[in-house]
Amino acid sequence: MKMDSRFSFEVLCQSEDGARRGKLKTPHGTIETPAFIFCGTKGTVKGLCAEQLRSCGTQFVLANTYHLHLRPGEDTVAALGGLHAMMDWHGPLLTDSGGFQIFSLGQGSVAQEIKSHRTFNGPRTLIAIEEDGALFRSYVDGSLRKLTPETAMAIQKKLGADIVLPLDECTPYRVDKSYTAASMARSHRWEMRSLDEFQRLNDGFQALYGIIQGGIYGDLRGESCEFVGAHNFFGQAIGGSLGGSSTEMEDVVSMVCEKKERTKPTHLLGIGSIPHIFHGVRNGIDSFDCVHPTRLARHGGALLTNFKSDGRGHINLRNCRFARDNSPIDSDCDCHSCKSASRGYIHHLLKSGETLGGQLLCMHNVRFMNALMERIRDAIGRGGTASVEELYLA
Amino acid sequence: MKMDSRFSFEVLCQSEDGARRGKLKTPHGTIETPAFIFCGTKGTVKGLCAEQLRSCGTQFVLANTYHLHLRPGEDTVAALGGLHAMMDWHGPLLTDSGGFQIFSLGQGSVAQEIKSHRTFNGPRTLIAIEEDGALFRSYVDGSLRKLTPETAMAIQKKLGADIVLPLDECTPYRVDKSYTAASMARSHRWEMRSLDEFQRLNDGFQALYGIIQGGIYGDLRGESCEFVGAHNFFGQAIGGSLGGSSTEMEDVVSMVCEKKERTKPTHLLGIGSIPHIFHGVRNGIDSFDCVHPTRLARHGGALLTNFKSDGRGHINLRNCRFARDNSPIDSDCDCHSCKSASRGYIHHLLKSGETLGGQLLCMHNVRFMNALMERIRDAIGRGGTASVEELYLA
Repeated sequence: MKMDSRFSFEVLCQSEDGARRGKLKTPHGTIETPAFIFCGTKGTVKGLCAEQLRSCGTQFVLANTYHLHLRPGEDTVAALGGLHAMMDWHGPLLTDSGGFQIFSLGQGSVAQEIKSHRTFNGPRTLIAIEEDGALFRSYVDGSLRKLTPETAMAIQKKLGADIVLPLDECTPYRVDKSYTAASMARSHRWEMRSLDEFQRLNDGFQALYGIIQGGIYGDLRGESCEFVGAHNFFGQAIGGSLGGSSTEMEDVVSMVCEKKERTKPTHLLGIGSIPHIFHGVRNGIDSFDCVHPTRLARHGGALLTNFKSDGRGHINLRNCRFARDNSPIDSDCDCHSCKSASRGYIHHLLKSGETLGGQLLCMHNVRFMNALMERIRDAIGRGGTASVEELYLA
Repeated sequence: MKMDSRFSFEVLCQSEDGARRGKLKTPHGTIETPAFIFCGTKGTVKGLCAEQLRSCGTQFVLANTYHLHLRPGEDTVAALGGLHAMMDWHGPLLTDSGGFQIFSLGQGSVAQEIKSHRTFNGPRTLIAIEEDGALFRSYVDGSLRKLTPETAMAIQKKLGADIVLPLDECTPYRVDKSYTAASMARSHRWEMRSLDEFQRLNDGFQALYGIIQGGIYGDLRGESCEFVGAHNFFGQAIGGSLGGSSTEMEDVVSMVCEKKERTKPTHLLGIGSIPHIFHGVRNGIDSFDCVHPTRLARHGGALLTNFKSDGRGHINLRNCRFARDNSPIDSDCDCHSCKSASRGYIHHLLKSGETLGGQLLCMHNVRFMNALMERIRDAIGRGGTASVEELYLA
């Protein structure tokens, strides 16, 4: 890929534990890495307006091509000025290719596998995976849709995010090595077609990441790292199945990070628990995304350090023990929620079905993640992330 | 009532059309009247935090004793520092007595009568009206509760609003004159007991309004005006049935306003459509409350002047014709929603079930009502409200 001056990635320093601090420049601003990317699935981070996201120190937001393609449609987003203008989010944006949702919503997710739901009872919206692309049904109106590497690029061009991803098959965990190898090879062919189409459409305002596949198999992951490293992708994302347990996931991430090309910004797709972030950072991951902070908020959960939450990493404010708790979610947090609302008030709002409860929690969880990443970046400059990990995971 | 220096009401000027501009001082700030009071039913104005309310120019918020008594309970609110601290709303607050909800939720509302639902199919939570007070069932846990004039005062004392109301029976429209007269007489006895209890508990941080009853009957309304005027209530609220149609309602309001005591601040309970606000203001009403702006927002409605909305007073952004409308809700509005979101984006959020859609609309509708009242106050100083009415209702 021609390195356009609107995009650049620079590693500023690396600590002994392997973590690196960097600057990722996009047309909508420069992201300090390692960074957390918040999920604005359907064009909004659940319950928060862009101003609130900014006030929480948010750098980077992700939106889902699959959802936005089905509703309101990329032409409508374009008519509303593109994703940045539509969402009033004028900072860096990333869109995925739609692949993850087609496969995870269409045939059951990796999480469902891990939780031993052997049979997937959701509507099977995935119709067929062909060489050309993926056939699926719209969950909005039941219509038949086809996403190809080329249409995924065209849709993302209309959405207008800064960083875009190629169509890939998100390989499930339950498949065997030969399926994973064949799927990876097809994803590579799709990525090459995506790169061609991207370059044909590119006007310098978007950058394309390659996706590293290969499931849990070291040789396949190595092959995929080589593939993505050898081609003109601006950055790289680690996708596909990372295994069936937390330990296996960390092993796969370590393995991939050893083999990955080192000058490209590297994103770890869909991972965002605190221990995994520390592990990823030490392996040279530059960005993370996960619905966890915002989804947890919708279910009443407030992120806290293990120390403050008796080791669980969060507290659930729906619990009756918080009914008369007049303290803030976290007395050390500087977010608007912690400055203005007590745990007892949020408990009341959640119990009463008032949306403000989830909003206040969402704001706190977003600020919590941003503060975590700020501390991690700071610590990298000062030698290593161990002191921060102790603060969060003690 | 002993006029405590923490409370005062002053009429600054009166225009020829009967409208008056005033200042209502409370321990939590001075309200410029005529003012609109927003419903924070369960301790929150649906979807907005206090900071957002303030940014929309909100002066005054109301919360419901009935709902807060049932959940989280007045002792919990007190443990959380009282309503002001709990809600982070440090401006003036009013609580009703719980009477309206006991009667309207317990036996069907006036609105249901008007809409010709002759039979009320909701759960009959009202068990009995006795001389001592009202017996009803909690909708939260089914427990039997009794609210008396005295307990209503004690609960409101714990909630801690600036202005409080006595327990009354909200007389339905369908009852005859003799029931209305008997109900009014009982409400007057309850109001006297409320006043005694209020004075026993009072520490100068709350003021009590009397409630004018009498249904649609001129002689009864006159009697009730005299009753409230003769006793030591700091202000007065117009309650009970105002009739079965818009015209009848305006006739009753005009009739009451002619007979009411003129130095007390006067609140019109539960009325808030734009034409009724203009009518009320010209009859010397100083404050209004209504769920309309916030309820409308939850259903996708944005308040606009009749001129901008083809005469309906609002537009519904769920309508498909707004899908690609890249203009703000109202290009003349200075609210955060109008500065940051297009109609098309809000349409998308509503269709996708994202709570941000309702929040953005709620913010606009709150700002719309506050701007309306600002213009009305301004016009009173300049001779009359006709020019503003033309702006809104043309």
